[in-house]
Formats: sequence, C-alpha cells, structure tokens
Amino acid sequence: MLKGQNRFTLLFFIPLAIFLIDVSRVQAAGVSQEMFTVNNTWMLVATFLVFIMHLGFATLEAGLTRAKNTTNILFKNTAIVAIGLLTYALVGFGLMYPGDFNGFIGLAGVGISVPPGDAGLIGYADGAYTYYTDFIFQAMFAATAATIVSGAVAERVKLGSFLIFSTIYVAFVYPIVGSWKWGGGWLDKMGFYDFAGSTLVHSVGGWAALAGVLILGPRFGKYVNGKIKPILGHNLPLATIGVFLLWLGWFGFNGGSVLSADPGLVSLVFVTTTLAAAAGVIAAMLTSWMVQKKPDLTMILNGSLAGLVGITASADSVSVTSSIIIGAVAGVMVVYSVMFFDKIKIDDPVGALSVHLVCGIWGTLAVGIFSTNPEHSLVVQLVGVLAYGVFCFPAAYGLFFMIKKTIGIRVSEEEERRGLDFSEHGMDAYSGFQITDL
Amino acid sequence: MLKGQNRFTLLFFIPLAIFLIDVSRVQAAGVSQEMFTVNNTWMLVATFLVFIMHLGFATLEAGLTRAKNTTNILFKNTAIVAIGLLTYALVGFGLMYPGDFNGFIGLAGVGISVPPGDAGLIGYADGAYTYYTDFIFQAMFAATAATIVSGAVAERVKLGSFLIFSTIYVAFVYPIVGSWKWGGGWLDKMGFYDFAGSTLVHSVGGWAALAGVLILGPRFGKYVNGKIKPILGHNLPLATIGVFLLWLGWFGFNGGSVLSADPGLVSLVFVTTTLAAAAGVIAAMLTSWMVQKKPDLTMILNGSLAGLVGITASADSVSVTSSIIIGAVAGVMVVYSVMFFDKIKIDDPVGALSVHLVCGIWGTLAVGIFSTNPEHSLVVQLVGVLAYGVFCFPAAYGLFFMIKKTIGIRVSEEEERRGLDFSEHGMDAYSGFQITDL
Amino acid sequence: MLKGQNRFTLLFFIPLAIFLIDVSRVQAAGVSQEMFTVNNTWMLVATFLVFIMHLGFATLEAGLTRAKNTTNILFKNTAIVAIGLLTYALVGFGLMYPGDFNGFIGLAGVGISVPPGDAGLIGYADGAYTYYTDFIFQAMFAATAATIVSGAVAERVKLGSFLIFSTIYVAFVYPIVGSWKWGGGWLDKMGFYDFAGSTLVHSVGGWAALAGVLILGPRFGKYVNGKIKPILGHNLPLATIGVFLLWLGWFGFNGGSVLSADPGLVSLVFVTTTLAAAAGVIAAMLTSWMVQKKPDLTMILNGSLAGLVGITASADSVSVTSSIIIGAVAGVMVVYSVMFFDKIKIDDPVGALSVHLVCGIWGTLAVGIFSTNPEHSLVVQLVGVLAYGVFCFPAAYGLFFMIKKTIGIRVSEEEERRGLDFSEHGMDAYSGFQITDL
Repeated sequence: MLKGQNRFTLLFFIPLAIFLIDVSRVQAAGVSQEMFTVNNTWMLVATFLVFIMHLGFATLEAGLTRAKNTTNILFKNTAIVAIGLLTYALVGFGLMYPGDFNGFIGLAGVGISVPPGDAGLIGYADGAYTYYTDFIFQAMFAATAATIVSGAVAERVKLGSFLIFSTIYVAFVYPIVGSWKWGGGWLDKMGFYDFAGSTLVHSVGGWAALAGVLILGPRFGKYVNGKIKPILGHNLPLATIGVFLLWLGWFGFNGGSVLSADPGLVSLVFVTTTLAAAAGVIAAMLTSWMVQKKPDLTMILNGSLAGLVGITASADSVSVTSSIIIGAVAGVMVVYSVMFFDKIKIDDPVGALSVHLVCGIWGTLAVGIFSTNPEHSLVVQLVGVLAYGVFCFPAAYGLFFMIKKTIGIRVSEEEERRGLDFSEHGMDAYSGFQITDL
Repeated sequence: MLKGQNRFTLLFFIPLAIFLIDVSRVQAAGVSQEMFTVNNTWMLVATFLVFIMHLGFATLEAGLTRAKNTTNILFKNTAIVAIGLLTYALVGFGLMYPGDFNGFIGLAGVGISVPPGDAGLIGYADGAYTYYTDFIFQAMFAATAATIVSGAVAERVKLGSFLIFSTIYVAFVYPIVGSWKWGGGWLDKMGFYDFAGSTLVHSVGGWAALAGVLILGPRFGKYVNGKIKPILGHNLPLATIGVFLLWLGWFGFNGGSVLSADPGLVSLVFVTTTLAAAAGVIAAMLTSWMVQKKPDLTMILNGSLAGLVGITASADSVSVTSSIIIGAVAGVMVVYSVMFFDKIKIDDPVGALSVHLVCGIWGTLAVGIFSTNPEHSLVVQLVGVLAYGVFCFPAAYGLFFMIKKTIGIRVSEEEERRGLDFSEHGMDAYSGFQITDL
Repeated sequence: MLKGQNRFTLLFFIPLAIFLIDVSRVQAAGVSQEMFTVNNTWMLVATFLVFIMHLGFATLEAGLTRAKNTTNILFKNTAIVAIGLLTYALVGFGLMYPGDFNGFIGLAGVGISVPPGDAGLIGYADGAYTYYTDFIFQAMFAATAATIVSGAVAERVKLGSFLIFSTIYVAFVYPIVGSWKWGGGWLDKMGFYDFAGSTLVHSVGGWAALAGVLILGPRFGKYVNGKIKPILGHNLPLATIGVFLLWLGWFGFNGGSVLSADPGLVSLVFVTTTLAAAAGVIAAMLTSWMVQKKPDLTMILNGSLAGLVGITASADSVSVTSSIIIGAVAGVMVVYSVMFFDKIKIDDPVGALSVHLVCGIWGTLAVGIFSTNPEHSLVVQLVGVLAYGVFCFPAAYGLFFMIKKTIGIRVSEEEERRGLDFSEHGMDAYSGFQITDL
C-alpha cells in the first residue's frame, strides 16, 4: 500500500528512528533481526488475542444476566476497555515496571513514550520485542482485571460509580501489586511464581469483585424468605460466544506470556492451556450432572474458564498430565463454589468469584504442587496468595465503601426492577422483542 | 512478564530440556532456528483459528434450529470440543500416526508426552514445528469431525447417547481412517490425495451424520402427509456469525495444512480457499434465486461452506481459476443437495450432509480433475472416497444402532415437542423472551 | 498432515515453481528467506483479521436496525464480501496497481494469476510477501469499501439494486481512485499520504453512502411532521459484537498496512490504533453524556469506530500522544455529526456517514496536522480529500440514479413496513420470537 520509498523516507523522520536503533540493540542482545521480528510478531498476535477476551467478557456477562440490563453491561464492558488502556498508558505501565524504567513513574507527559536512548527494544526482553509491544500487551492485561469485577456487581451497580471504581483500581491497585512479581518486586525475589496471572490478574480482579458484592448486597428477588431463587441468564448463545472467545483469547494470554515465540515453550503452553480447559469442561459436566441431576450448560461454560484460570499460573512449568489434573480439579471446584456462594447468600450473577478468585487461588497453589521446577514452593505460593488478598480486598473494599458513602453505589429498587437499560441509559437492548420480565 | 532469568532457569528444569534439544534437531534438519520458529508460530496461529471453528459450528447449528433446543445444542458443541481434545490426547494421536511413532499406540499413560529422545521437534516435519504443536493442531481437527455429526442429529437426539457416540467415533474411527492417508497408510501409498481433509475430516463426519439421521428419523412435524414443512432457524444472525467464524477458521484449517509457513504455498492456499468460498456464495445465491424464486440467506451461508469444504482437498494444488470453479460447482451442488435430501425425507436440520458429505466427496474428486500435479488421479481419488464410505458409514451405523438398542437414541415425542432445553437441561436459552413455539 | 516427500514432489509440478523462484528473488532483494517468511506470515495474519471485519460490519448493521430487516442485512453483507473478492480478482487488482503490473489490466483470463517471470514474490515489496499475499490482503480491503455503503442504505434499498451498485462500485471506482495513491498515481506523486485508508477506503465508501442516502430518502416514520423519531436498533449485543470485531480487524487493517512485520512500525501502529479507539470511546461517552444527558451505548460504539477511522491515515506517522488526540477529536465529532445529519433529515440508520466519511476526512487532514514527517502537508491532504469527493460522490450518485431510473432503488412502502426479510427473502430472522413491530 505504501510505496517502498515512502516507507523508508518516513522512517528517517520518526524522532527516535525506531528501526535503526532496533537493529543495533538487537545485535547487542545477540539475537538476529529475523528472530527479533518473529518474536515481536508473535507478541502482537498474542496482544490481539487478549483484546478479544474483552468481547468475551462482555458477551458472557450479558448472556448470563437479564435482558433488561444488557445495554448497561455492554456499556460497562466497552468503557472499561478504553479506561483500562488509557490509564495504563498514563500511569499503570510506569507503576508496574519501576525496576525496568527507573525513575520513570507516570511516564512522560500524556501517553506512553519511548524512554530516551531505549527506543524500540526494551532491555529485559533479550531481543524479544519492542517497547511498544511490551506496553500494548501489558495494557490489554490491565483492562482484563477491571472487567472481572464487572460481572459480579452486574444488574444493580450504578454506572458512574462502577466506572470511577474501575478507573482507580486499574490505574493504581493493579499495577502496584503487579510490580511485586512481574515488576521484579519482593514476591519475585522470594521465588513466587505466577506465569500469566492466576493471581496477578484473576485473583486481583476476584478480590475486588468480592468486595463489591459484599458492599452491594444481592439483587432483589434472589434470596426470598431464606430461599435461593435462580435468576436465569437471558441469552445462552451470547454466553457461549463469550466463553469460546475467552478460551481463544487465552491462547494469547498464556501463549504470549512466554514473552517470545520460543517453539518448545509456546507449544507446550498451548497444550497445557487447552487440555486444562477441556478437563474443566468434562469435570464440571460430570459434577453438575451428578449433583444437580441435570447437565447444566452454564456450569460447563464456567468449567472451561475454571480450567483456564487454574492453569494460568503454571502453564509453562507443568507436564501435560498435570495440566489435565489442574483443569479437572478447577472444574469440580467451580461447581461447588458457585453453590457455596449462593448458599451463604453472596450473589454473584456470573460466577466471577468462583472462576477468577477461587480458581485463581487454586491455580497459584497448583504451581507449588505440580511444577517441574524444584525452585517453586507451595509455601511461597501461599504467601503470594495471601499477600494479594491482604492488599487487594481491603483496598477494593475501602474504595467501594467511599464511593457508597459519597455518590452512592447501587441504583434504587425501582430502577433495578425496571432494569438498568431503561433507568441508566434510556435504551433497551432488544427493541421490538417481547420481553416478559420488564 | 516473566523476568528473563526465570525463563531460562525454568528451562533447565523441564525434564526433557525441550528447547536445547530443539536447537540440535533443527540444525540436523538443515533449517535455521529462525525458520523453525516462524514455521512453528504459524502452525500455532493456524491452531487457534481451527479452534474458533468450534464456536462457528455451535452458533451455526443453534441459529438454524429452533429456540427451544438451543441450550442443548450449545451444550453438545461445548462438550464435544472437550471430548475431542482429551480423547485425541489419550488415544487418537497415537492411533493416527503409527508410522511416525512406531509402537507408540495409546501414548504414555494419561495425556500425551514427548516420546523419549524426540522431544520438541518431530521427525517428519523437517524442522517445521514441535511435537506439541503437531499434537494440538491435529487435536483441533479431530474435534471438528465429531462436531459435524451434531448438526444433522439436532433437535431429537438424546444428549447422553450423542456424547457416547461422539466419544467413541472421535477416539477410534477418526484416527484409524485418518492414518490411511495422513499416517502414511495404504491410501497414502496408493497416491490418494486429500490436502486438508475434504474426506478425512468432512466426509468422515458426514458419513456418521448420515448414519445418525437414518437411525433417528425426521423431526416431528417435518414431513406431514407426504408434504415437507420447513422448520425455520430461530436466529439467523447467530447462523451468520457461525459461517463467518468457520470461514475465518478455514484460513488455519487449510493454511495450517501446508505444515509450514512456506510463503508461496500458504498464500496460494489463502487465495484458493477464499475464492472458492466466495464462488460458493455467488453460485448458491444465483441457484437458489432461480430455483426457489427468493434469495435465501441460509443457502448462501451453506454455499460458502460448500465452497470451503470443496476446496479443502486441493487448496494447495490447483490454479486460482480452478479454485473458483470448484467453489462454484459446490455452491450449485449444495442447493440441489439440500432439496434432494428433503425430497427423500432425510431430515438434516442444518444441511450438514449436503455441506460436509456431498461437497467433501466433490472436493476429493476435484483433486483428480483440477490438480496441477500429474500424479493425482481421479480413479485413486474415487477409491479413497469409497474406502472411507465403506468403513465409516457401517461403523457409525453399527455404533448408533447399538446405542439405540441399549440406552436409546431419541428423546420422547413429548420431550421433543417441548424442546430439549427443558427436557434434557431444565434451562431455556432465552429466559425472559416470549417464544411462540414452546 | 502432508508427508514431506509429497509436499516437495508437488512443488515441482506447480507450473511456475513458486517456491524456487521465491528464493532467488528474495536473495536478489537482499532479504533472507527467514525474514521473507515472517513478513509474509504477518501479512496473512493481517489478511484474516481484515476478513473478520466483514462479520463486524454485518453484525453492527444488523444490531442497529430493526428485527424485520435482519435477514436482508445479513444477506447483503455476506454477498458483498463474495462480490468484492471475486471482482477484485477479475478486474480490481489489475486496475489498482497499473504501475506495478504494466499492461496487466484486468489480469489474465478468469481469476488472478501470477504474472510470468514474477511468480511468488512481487517486485515493489522488497522481499516482504508474495504476489498471492498482496492480492488477498488488498482484496479484503476492497470488499470493505463496498460494505460501508450497506449500513447507510439499510432497511429500504432493494436487494438486487444494491448488489448491482456494489458490484460496479467495488469493481471499478474503488480500484481506479485507489490507484491515485496506492497505485503510485498523481496524488502519490504530489505527496498525499493515507497510511491505511481513512480516505482510500473509508471516505470512498462514505461518499457512496451519502449518494445512496440522498437518492433513497429517509425511512418511513423517521421524520414525521418535522420531528425526528428515533428508530432503535433491535439487538445491541449484536452491535457490540460488531464493533469489537471491527476493532480486532483493525489490528490487521492498520498493522498489515506496514506491509511487513517490521517490529518498530507494526508495534507503534498497534499502540496508536488502540489508543485512538480508546480515546474515541471516552470522548464519545463524555460528549453524549453531556449533550444527551444519558450515556448512550450506540454513541460509544461509534466513538471507537470514529477513533479507528480517524487514526487510519496516520497510524504509522504520529506520536502516541497525537494518536490519543486524533481519536478523542473523532469521538467528539461523531456524536455531533450523528445529531447533525439527523437534524438535516439525512437518515443514516447506523451512522456510517459520521463514522466513515466525516472521520475519514478528519483522519486524512490529521496527517497534515500531527505527522512527524515534515513532508506531509495539510494543503496536500486537503487536495486529496477533495479529489476523492469530487470523483466518488458524482460517480456513486450517477450510478444510483441510473439504477433508480431503470430497475428502481427502493422497496415499496408496504414492503418496507412489513420488513425486507419477508418481502425480499420470505424468511424472518427470528422465527419463533414474538416481534412487536412487524
């Protein structure tokens, strides 16, 4: 499309002459330009795969809730991606990797910019990808953590309050606790291991979801006279689309966390990730069939996510057999966990606590049990799990609490009954369809 | 995300030291580490593309059937992916490639594992990808074959019976007949050619679909007093999503079947695959417009799939012009085939027989007609087509028959009328919507 | 899948021996076979990403219109992809790149074919990809331009008339004006810059959309007694799926327009593209919240597309900060533009004019304002914008006018009221659902 000469002319005028610096830095790192290019290309493929997880979250959450709250859910999930990306550019990236970008907190001005003298290629990646690739891959992860909260607080949270919470949580809490491990902080130094984020992404989102649910309370009509009244999802094809897109995205979430296109490691991660998800489906199917007497679609959907969250901490460091066990245990766990939260009247419309928090913890501990790397230790993994809980839950609780006391956190009963689509947006999601629960 | 030193520390502790062995084997194969990495990366991209086809099948099948059976269809299609992947790890992969993994049938213990002394890089691929990549790419194919059956038997098959059938078919029949060609078996030695599976995947699924449909019989209300009563799909956007996702996935299905990132071959395959699908759409549009007097969306959707199945056997070995002809013929064929099966009262809710069996046969024969490789022969292609029919149809028929005689194969009339969502799962797919045919 | 020996045997019999010529041409271009392969692989990944945009357009358009026109919209969007691809093979590719393929207009016979002596690798790409890759990537773009028109004329245009218009427009107008810049024509020589097609794709589609809307007039019931009556979209999840898929596809649309896998440039383009979209979402959210008093989901969806169209002309040549500004301005603009067109009674059901034409112009001018390349000039950009308008709008208007005067352009009022699904196709999209506006 671009004529050759334009492309090269252009390059000379990009301030930092990205391309030329790439070459010299790559050579210094002892990696060929070809290897640098294929590594970087794989990381960008992983980036767009993680991006599509946001559509997965949006459709899963919308599908598992009621038709009258669909516009609101789609709005939240679209806005949160944009907020996550922009705040990560403004502050998150700088906060999360202080070791790599010394004194570079908050980044230069508005938006990210290439640190002087370091253009194109980042130092710690040994010729694997550019600074921009690093940013955009990590930014997609950041947006994910915020999205996890959305499902748990669905159908009753005020839109503005949720957006404020998410903005602060993703801008500050996510990168600060992320730096403990991925930024080379104290947990990394202790030997804590979390390959792609069972804890750093999923539990971090899960703890905030728990705080939100506790402060909000259950939806009207969910627990009546001590009885649990199931509130059914309005669109199971939408929910299924969501789960398959999440599974698809996980090939990038885990596969990209290898941080290069290393053939042995990336392909191992594809296999462990896939088989853990498959084992989660089958385990959840058998468990729900036995316990609930009916094969429950929403349980096998959550079973696959449970397996995926479960394998995320260890996808590169366990055997294939172990990955199947980890996924299967997660699949059993998610069914019982969903029933348990319902029993103690913690109302989580999409099962986000069970999938992301419970299985995130399980996956992190599984490193200590199944890893083939003798340096990984169950005790250290447990320390990590507790550390994240001890920081994230109070932080999220305090934040939600302050929002509740100032601008309020929950819509009125009347608004909730009519649906958030009408009360918050004045726009139903299914105009022209006869909906019975409006 | 991972700090550099951890990544390398880790590698030393993976039992078989995948990475190091990779390097030496790649060097022995005369391929640079860079070329190995780009080839492997492309194969993994192809793998996730084939994965997303399963969502395509799920949404297409759900969209073309009635709202009251949607949960059931989504359940089947989610479970079948998991079953296909796990059984392929347990037995399929070993059965399908006995030549390459001599005496290695059933694979070691639970789950796949790298054969001793052969870690990371598989022998026959000439430096193109790892053992794990080979497994996961092939496993995605296996799951596809099982899914094809699902659409034909929809809206009346018992869930448990279908799952048992699929498990056995994908675990044993698919890999055994697959080994005839792709495993280097007798048809391969005869010169039979099937690039990406018009026969090995689509017809294998199609023969089983035919057996299932014959044993089940038509849905209630489809053929009344000798008249055909069309049963309309409940959600054409869902069906359209399905077809586009299948088309998308086919870039990996065919593009990955090059088994390397070879620029000339992969790009040729992209062109032939795309234009065959486009020609299938246009041919089906014109045919259905003329024959049925109305332009029929479901026909052009099936037209694109017809073109895709048709080009699958020859995508790398025909000219661009030939690919358009092959796709156009398939597009005409699928319209008449759908009408033909309806006329002889074979009730196939989604047209799976026409797309996968009829066009799979056409595509396989088309190799003998259009291939630019003089070694390909129409007679040998016909032998292949017949061989697969003679084995797969009786195998599937016998299996379905045994299931029918033991646990039963079809839900009761009452259950069918109310819908499988309620009778099998106790959960409607569209809670809150007014559905008129419950 | 293919046995090694077959793959190599096959190659010897492909008439032009693509692979062998590849190698020698690549060596002549001074690029290693490895670099050629990774570049080509990235371009094919970009190709399938642009492909999935067509599903994005289909679902977005369907979601933002009424249930009774859904089958028709899905039909149009499926057919248009096929038409775009086939016409581009027959005439478009040859017309668009006359400079590169001298005397090669219309291409040899039916379908594209490799020009003699130039097999596999095209001349101007400096070892970046094959002839087939070039064709298929560009063909996906061509199909996009035609699809843009579809949304603006939805819910009232005759199917056959629309298909005839699209076929001619995509076969002749798109490639002819495309050659002005990307084919090395007069605007390219003047220094006009349009990286990935804010003008060449989006405005070209947008001008035709404007012509179509003016000739068709508004939908019945949209403007009654001087008042604007909003016609709500029937399926906002579908519209949201559409926007996310378009955003996903844009990673290939812009990322592939680098025309190689150059790590610095492709990753920069990923960052600018993503942040422009995110800024578009936030800007549209704040604007619509302030102006309309309610946070409007359809506005933030269009905001993301506005940001994406806006950054498309300059994604490789502006700073990250500039990309956020460009996207934010587009996000504000799209909200006011949608309201403006409504005010002057130009009825554009999906906001295609605002997104593709208005933001396409904005993006093209933004090159002149924000580019870091001093050779880019606002005046020249303005000349380019005007040149495309002066050619495309009259061409499209004349074409629509001739169609109106011959076979007619608009369905009857009765057909429109009942819905095009019934009147044009005899097939509703949501069989079994209670729809209230039929």
